[in-house]
Amino acid sequence: MTANTLNIIKIGGNVIDNSENLYHFLKDFKDLDGYKILVHGGGKIATQVSESLGIEARMIDGRRITDVETLRVVTMVYGGLVNKNIVAQLQRFGTNAIGLTGADGNLIKARKRPVKTIDYGFVGDLFDGSINSTGIASLLQAGFTPVFSALTHDGEGQLLNTNADTIASALAVAMSGLFETTLIYCFEKKGVLMDVNDDESVIREIDPARYEDLKIQQIIHSGMLPKLDNAFTAIACGVKAVVIGRSDDLGNIRENKPFGTRLSKNT
Amino acid sequence: MTANTLNIIKIGGNVIDNSENLYHFLKDFKDLDGYKILVHGGGKIATQVSESLGIEARMIDGRRITDVETLRVVTMVYGGLVNKNIVAQLQRFGTNAIGLTGADGNLIKARKRPVKTIDYGFVGDLFDGSINSTGIASLLQAGFTPVFSALTHDGEGQLLNTNADTIASALAVAMSGLFETTLIYCFEKKGVLMDVNDDESVIREIDPARYEDLKIQQIIHSGMLPKLDNAFTAIACGVKAVVIGRSDDLGNIRENKPFGTRLSKNT
Repeated sequence: MTANTLNIIKIGGNVIDNSENLYHFLKDFKDLDGYKILVHGGGKIATQVSESLGIEARMIDGRRITDVETLRVVTMVYGGLVNKNIVAQLQRFGTNAIGLTGADGNLIKARKRPVKTIDYGFVGDLFDGSINSTGIASLLQAGFTPVFSALTHDGEGQLLNTNADTIASALAVAMSGLFETTLIYCFEKKGVLMDVNDDESVIREIDPARYEDLKIQQIIHSGMLPKLDNAFTAIACGVKAVVIGRSDDLGNIRENKPFGTRLSKNT
Repeated sequence: MTANTLNIIKIGGNVIDNSENLYHFLKDFKDLDGYKILVHGGGKIATQVSESLGIEARMIDGRRITDVETLRVVTMVYGGLVNKNIVAQLQRFGTNAIGLTGADGNLIKARKRPVKTIDYGFVGDLFDGSINSTGIASLLQAGFTPVFSALTHDGEGQLLNTNADTIASALAVAMSGLFETTLIYCFEKKGVLMDVNDDESVIREIDPARYEDLKIQQIIHSGMLPKLDNAFTAIACGVKAVVIGRSDDLGNIRENKPFGTRLSKNT
C-alpha cells in the first residue's frame, strides 16, 4: 500500500437498504488505507419515496424513465437523504467524508441521453473528459473522502440521473492517471463463483486469458458478462485491478484475508 | 475589494420559493468579487413535500418540531433538492459551487438542543468552535464556492436541523479570523426602513451609536430588534459589516450603487 493508492468502492441497494449492513460496511470502509472514494446508488428508498408521493414509476420496455418528478425524488433521496446520512456516519467513525453529486465542484459532467426509440428522460451518459480528475485529486489531497451519489450535471444547470456502476468505473479510469487505483464493486455474492450454487466456490483471481477460458467453459455467462467485460475494459484503460465481492467481507482486505474476485492484467 | 475579502450571503424562502427570483439572485451572486459562501434555508418546499408525504407538521407553542420524519424531509429537501439545484445553476454561471451540510468535511458541528419545557427534536444549536474555519478556508482557497444548507451534525452520526440565519452569522464570525468578512442577509425589504410604510426610506448606514438612537426613537422595534442585535454582536466579534437588503438589489454592489442597510462599527 503506497501513499498514492486509491480505492474506489461502489455500493448498491443490498448495502444501502439495510441499516445494519450499511453500518458494518462503513466501519470497514473507514479502516481502508490510502485515499478512497465511495460511490452509491439509491436502493429502494427512492422507489418508496416516489410511491409515498404518489409518483408512478414510468417504465418503457422494462426500463425506468427519469421524468421531472422522478428526478426531483432521486435528487432528494440520492443527493440528500442517503448521501448525507452516509457522510454523517463516516464522520462519526473519524473519516472526513464530503458528500457530492457530479454538479458539486463540477466534478462529473454528463450529456442527457439522446432520444432514439426510447426517451429515458433526465438520464446522463458519461463521455471522455466527464471526470474532473484534478478537482477530485484536490479534495483527496486536502484530506477529504468524497462520497458520490449517482447524480451528474450537464454544465447548463440540469442535474442528471446516472448509473452508479458507470460513475464508479469512469472515476477509476480517470483517477488511474494520478493514483494507483483499484475499483471495488460490492454486490450480493462473495465473488465470481465457479459453481453458481456454491457460495464458497469463489474464483480468487482472473486475468484476461483465464477470463476467455471461463467464458468458453460457460462458467461465466449471462448477467456477469457485462460486469466483467466492463471491468476488463477499465483495466485496459489503466485501472490496476477490479475487485468484485460482498460488502460484509470488506474487512478481509485489512486482515490480509481473501476478498472477492480480483480481476487484473496479470494474476 | 482585496484578495482576502469574503462575502457570506444568506437567502431564505422569498428567494428559494420563486424560481425567477432565485435565477436573478444567482446571476448577481456569481458576479460578486472575492471569496464567497452561500447559506440557504429550505423555504416552503419542505412543507409541501411533508404534506405530500402525509407528515403532519408538529407544532408546540407555535414552534415547529423536527421529529424523525421531518428530519428525513429536511435532509431530502434542504440537503438534496434545493442545495443541488442551486449548485447546478451556479455551475451553469461558471461559479465552482460545492453543496454542503455541516456534516460534509465536518465543517459545522452542533449539539442537539436540550429538552427543557419543549422537545424540539432533531434541532442543532451551535457552540463556540462549531465552525471548522480551516476546513472551509481550504475549500475556498482550492477554488470552490461553498453552498451550505441549514443542516449540521453532532459528530456522532446524527444530522440536525439548524437555523440558517444562525449558521450564516456563526460562519461570518469564525471566518473573520481569516478573511475580511461581510455578512449579507437577503430578506423581503430593501433594508432597515425609516418609515415602515415607505419602501424607499432605507437607512443606508447604522453604527452602534445610531442604533441606540433609532431604538430610543422607536424607529427600530419588534421583529427587527433580534436581527440587528445579532448583527451587532457579530460585528463586535470581528465581522467587518452586516448588510441587510433585498435579493434582487444585490447587483447594486457590483454597480457601486447603494445596497440595503450596512451595519458596521464605524459608518
